[in-house]
Formats: sequence, structure tokens, C-alpha cells
Amino acid sequence: MSKPLFANRGEKAEIEEGTVLSPKFDKAGLLPVVTTDHNSGKVLMLAYMNDLALAKTIETKSAHYWSRSRNELWHKGATSGLTQKVVELKIDCDQDAIWMSVEVQGEGCCHVGYEGCFFRSIPLGEKPGASLKLAFNEGGKVFDPKKVYGK
Amino acid sequence: MSKPLFANRGEKAEIEEGTVLSPKFDKAGLLPVVTTDHNSGKVLMLAYMNDLALAKTIETKSAHYWSRSRNELWHKGATSGLTQKVVELKIDCDQDAIWMSVEVQGEGCCHVGYEGCFFRSIPLGEKPGASLKLAFNEGGKVFDPKKVYGK
Repeated sequence: MSKPLFANRGEKAEIEEGTVLSPKFDKAGLLPVVTTDHNSGKVLMLAYMNDLALAKTIETKSAHYWSRSRNELWHKGATSGLTQKVVELKIDCDQDAIWMSVEVQGEGCCHVGYEGCFFRSIPLGEKPGASLKLAFNEGGKVFDPKKVYGK
Repeated sequence: MSKPLFANRGEKAEIEEGTVLSPKFDKAGLLPVVTTDHNSGKVLMLAYMNDLALAKTIETKSAHYWSRSRNELWHKGATSGLTQKVVELKIDCDQDAIWMSVEVQGEGCCHVGYEGCFFRSIPLGEKPGASLKLAFNEGGKVFDPKKVYGK
């Protein structure tokens, strides 16, 4: 058994108010990561890290995630060139979520071609049903995913 | 079987680039929600919604989550009074994460007493190990959780 990359979880008071990093990964070994643009504050994406992705992100200051679709370590930008330079990395009270503030090295983050993944808004104040339609909230795509990802 | 609250998932192109709201809930029936402060842009918390919590949030414009610890629908602020008025609600490309921008009706959101849950930073640029210590990044608590939650 390999040595754990982070401290084991201690008492609740230590986890919630102490200085020991003891992240809680779920049954699949992952925790969610909110990635925001350091300059605009915009939420760019929500993705997941396992322990190795978190360790590599801390050490290299370049965002690493765990790709759930490809089931592999994912150095963001390795294919597209759109890497993310980490400026701040924060963990929440119960240490089961990460907030990462980054400088995007390129046009955007979303594989569909937008700057961020949250390019559609849900209308508010009505009962959800078939008539509810998402509204596009960005000016448009900032890059051509076919060119960037070659597919 | 009760009627689903949202559309069934269609083709990938429709999910990723269309206007039909067809959120993907995980095996536990949940999806992650990033909640930010509408005025400052700060990430306040990461929590989860089930289909009912999402429907109630859309309809009432007051944040509802699913409490994984209590295993029940959670109208944020029902106990503490610290409700969240929803200003914008966005969904990501593959419709399995939500970004909710809110106005907090009160001092903060975090059950520990801070404005937001991400009050500790992880140092960058070193190999993770026992010497790595979290650093507090906020001025201090903004409310007394014992008074607000009565425990």
C-alpha cells in the first residue's frame, strides 16, 4: 500500500478549524473543484480531482484534474494548449471541496468552445416544466473546438 | 411513479448546445452547486441539489439544497435566518453542475461562522507533505455559529 499523499482525517474541530490539510475524497476517490478566473472572478468550470491531481496541482501550480469520462489524470491544456496557471487554492470547511483561482493561458476552458462552461442561464420564478428554456448568456464561442481538440 | 420534474436527457448536441433543461443527477440523485456572492463574486460554498431542490430554487428564487448529512431537503436559512436570494442560475455544458449567484440575507453562509466556506488557503509550489499548513485567508468569523444555530 502506497503512502497517503495527505494527512488522515482527524477530529471534526481540526478538520473544520485547523491548519492540517486532510481532504475528504468520495467513494470514487474524488472531490469537486470550482475553477474561477482570477481576473474576472467568473466561474469557469466544475471538475474533479483525486489525490494525485491535487498533489500535482499544488506542486506544479498548473491545474490537474481527474477525467471521469476518460478515467485518467488530466493535465488541463495538455491537448488544447489551454492550460490554467493556479493563483490561489482554497479548501472548504469540511475539506471536501476546492476553490481554485486561475489564469487561463488562452481563450477559454470549455470543450464546447466558450470561455467557461456556464454559458446558459435557467429562467427564474416559474414552475419548472416543458416551457422552461435555457438562455445563452455569453457573446458566443471564443474558440473553435474542432481546431483546438482536432475532432 | 411520479412525473419527472425536468426533461429526460436527449442527444449530446442538445444537452451541450441546446435550450432544453435536462440536468444530470448522479447515482444519489444529486448534482453539485457552486454558490457565489452576487456583489463580490466570491465563492461562498459548494453544496448539492436533488431535482426537488432545483425545482424549488427556480420557482421561489430562494436557495434550496439537499442536505447530505441530514438526508433531507434544505431550505438554506430556515434555521439560521441566513437565506440566499437567487439572482442568477446557470448550468454547465454537460448539465451536471449549477452555478448560482445569490444575495446573502445576513452575515454569511458557512456553518463555522465565516462569510464563506473557503476560508483556508493551501500553499502552492511545494511537495505536499506533513509540513504543509493551511493559512486562514479571511479577517475572521462574521457571526457566532452557537448563537445562530443554537448549538
